[in-house]
Amino acid sequence: MLHKVFKTSTLALICTTALSGAVAVTAQAAEAETERHKVEVTTVTEGLNFPWGLAFLPNGDALVTEKSGNLRRVGTDGVISDPILGVPDVVYKSQGGLLDVALDPDFEENEWVYLSYSEADPDGGPGNSTAVVRGKLVGNNLQEVEVIFRGMPKYESGAHFGSRLVFSPEGHLFVTLGDRYSAMDDAQTLDNHHGKVVRIWPDGSVPEDNPFVSQDGALPEIWSYGHRNVQGAAIHPQTGDLWTVEHGPKGGDEVNIPIAGGNYGWPIATYGVDYDGSIISDQTHVEGTLQPHYYWVPSIATSNAIFYTGSEFPEWQGDFLVAALKASQVARLDLEGERVMHEETLFKDVVDQRIRDIEQGPDGAIYLVTDDRNGKLIRITNADD
Amino acid sequence: MLHKVFKTSTLALICTTALSGAVAVTAQAAEAETERHKVEVTTVTEGLNFPWGLAFLPNGDALVTEKSGNLRRVGTDGVISDPILGVPDVVYKSQGGLLDVALDPDFEENEWVYLSYSEADPDGGPGNSTAVVRGKLVGNNLQEVEVIFRGMPKYESGAHFGSRLVFSPEGHLFVTLGDRYSAMDDAQTLDNHHGKVVRIWPDGSVPEDNPFVSQDGALPEIWSYGHRNVQGAAIHPQTGDLWTVEHGPKGGDEVNIPIAGGNYGWPIATYGVDYDGSIISDQTHVEGTLQPHYYWVPSIATSNAIFYTGSEFPEWQGDFLVAALKASQVARLDLEGERVMHEETLFKDVVDQRIRDIEQGPDGAIYLVTDDRNGKLIRITNADD
Ligand SMILES: [Ca+2]
Ligand SMILES: [Ca+2]
Repeated sequence: MLHKVFKTSTLALICTTALSGAVAVTAQAAEAETERHKVEVTTVTEGLNFPWGLAFLPNGDALVTEKSGNLRRVGTDGVISDPILGVPDVVYKSQGGLLDVALDPDFEENEWVYLSYSEADPDGGPGNSTAVVRGKLVGNNLQEVEVIFRGMPKYESGAHFGSRLVFSPEGHLFVTLGDRYSAMDDAQTLDNHHGKVVRIWPDGSVPEDNPFVSQDGALPEIWSYGHRNVQGAAIHPQTGDLWTVEHGPKGGDEVNIPIAGGNYGWPIATYGVDYDGSIISDQTHVEGTLQPHYYWVPSIATSNAIFYTGSEFPEWQGDFLVAALKASQVARLDLEGERVMHEETLFKDVVDQRIRDIEQGPDGAIYLVTDDRNGKLIRITNADD
Repeated sequence: MLHKVFKTSTLALICTTALSGAVAVTAQAAEAETERHKVEVTTVTEGLNFPWGLAFLPNGDALVTEKSGNLRRVGTDGVISDPILGVPDVVYKSQGGLLDVALDPDFEENEWVYLSYSEADPDGGPGNSTAVVRGKLVGNNLQEVEVIFRGMPKYESGAHFGSRLVFSPEGHLFVTLGDRYSAMDDAQTLDNHHGKVVRIWPDGSVPEDNPFVSQDGALPEIWSYGHRNVQGAAIHPQTGDLWTVEHGPKGGDEVNIPIAGGNYGWPIATYGVDYDGSIISDQTHVEGTLQPHYYWVPSIATSNAIFYTGSEFPEWQGDFLVAALKASQVARLDLEGERVMHEETLFKDVVDQRIRDIEQGPDGAIYLVTDDRNGKLIRITNADD
């Protein structure tokens, strides 16, 4: 139901760019129809090197991570800053690197910015894991940087790091993690962080009411387990619950609403098969594991997700928007309460790169960053008549 | 994800048939992959004239209505009987004719068979409406035929008659109706049967606990209202609740779980637009109306639906299978309780005619009839390795 409608003036600009090979830096815009809104899709800027995480500062500037290890500020005019200083070293390898960025809920008072990344073994071993730091953003410097979470064990893999950072209404920080691919069985045991969602306080301490704090041999940061690679997370604006989105293997991308201590089944229960077509598990239902809230077969390769709450798109308020790598699309799950009533595929024909992150801007527009060497920051606005 | 895989022997048969133009009467079979099962699709018989309703007798024979006015018995060998005698006259016009067929829950004791159809005005006026008769099936004769429901008012239209017949676990008969297209506003008022689901006892009497029995000016048979054209109905095997499926206009086909007295919004709230693209209502949410449980945009043109409970397809048990006219497909809604977790499109490439009815056979296979002058009865069985 999407129709790609380039405005004439814009089309000319895009064609010129394609022919000359030059990098266009000013707005390219395309219009598209969706079920409930006409949208304008504008490239705010490009030239970002595999951007991964996006967060908005109170003044409207965007903080963007590049997987290669840089954190940059992008002005509302599209100008990209030099790298912000003070960011930790990252293991930039395959899916690893500098990953998500989030602002403290009290950022305007405390200036804390949180970053997730692939961290090398501090003891010099070959392994790595997802870690989280925070630092105070002063100008273009990150200061008082401290590691607040370090996934364990360190493991030699370039795959499945998670990782999104979201704050609960009570101020907990959820960090979503991956199973490191070849360590998938670890997702079912509680002595490691593979395939887990963890819940910590912003200083890294463990909340006393975490589900496994009193269980011998279990890591106390764990909130839920049995996940594969959770790269999307958002807090439901009414219930305050965490919703996560994880990549399945071939088939079986999932939306979950992780409850404390919940086992989401991976790898003993899944709707997917391995990339080579082999069976990981022929079970979709295993006692003691929880069914997904919603799933995709075939996979769309889910990245991040948001609940849309802005005034720019009144008909999408309360909907869950799930960005995807594979089809350069955003899946709009039309929700009634928590129930999915309908899925619409948005932006498929007007975004030409894999979508790595989605956020709602302070202006109510929807922003995307794309997973490309020449990655874009894209703004979606309302073009209704 | 469906792959059409003809067996060699079958392919030869089909090609021969296509070349000669002869009507093949014996099994044509094709295999198809789905997400969870491999299926074999067999044409049990063809030559049915716009079959509409399908119900299975205890001995495995199928009763099939033809819209033109005949009720026939189809043996498990595919042999089609002469018309069963005693069926009422019908208004065979556009969407009207002989419509659904259902057996009494106590059929083996009482032999009652129920038929819905488009009935002319008994007073000779130009109007018509959906009516329901029952009669005792003795051999190939329908005896003691009596009208148990007569939609009112009679209305001059060939469109939107509903109508499915299903029995609740308590023995009520639900009759689903349509808005007669040009009378759509009637769906919001209770002084008529347009756009309603009605609940009666099998003899046509009104249950005392129907929601509007005590409301002045309201027809006491009404169970729920604000429907457009409800052509699908099934009882949830665990909850015992009625689930209905209705055609939207262009966009907005709906699954509803009609509660007593519920207003399902049509035509003041809808996710669709009229066939010519004009707006019927720009509202999807109107106070006092209930949201659909699930909906489709664009429309798939829903016909009937079943809850699958058989052993032939273990992975589909508990799922809601919604047949569609437009895409010759069955939408499998993978349910966890009442929640839709996933939608899969089944049979799209192996059924080449619009699907008018879907039923589960006594053998656990899935049966379809197709909306065609040379309509088919199709059996779907398990072809897993
Ligand atoms: Ca799972
Ligand atoms: Ca409705």
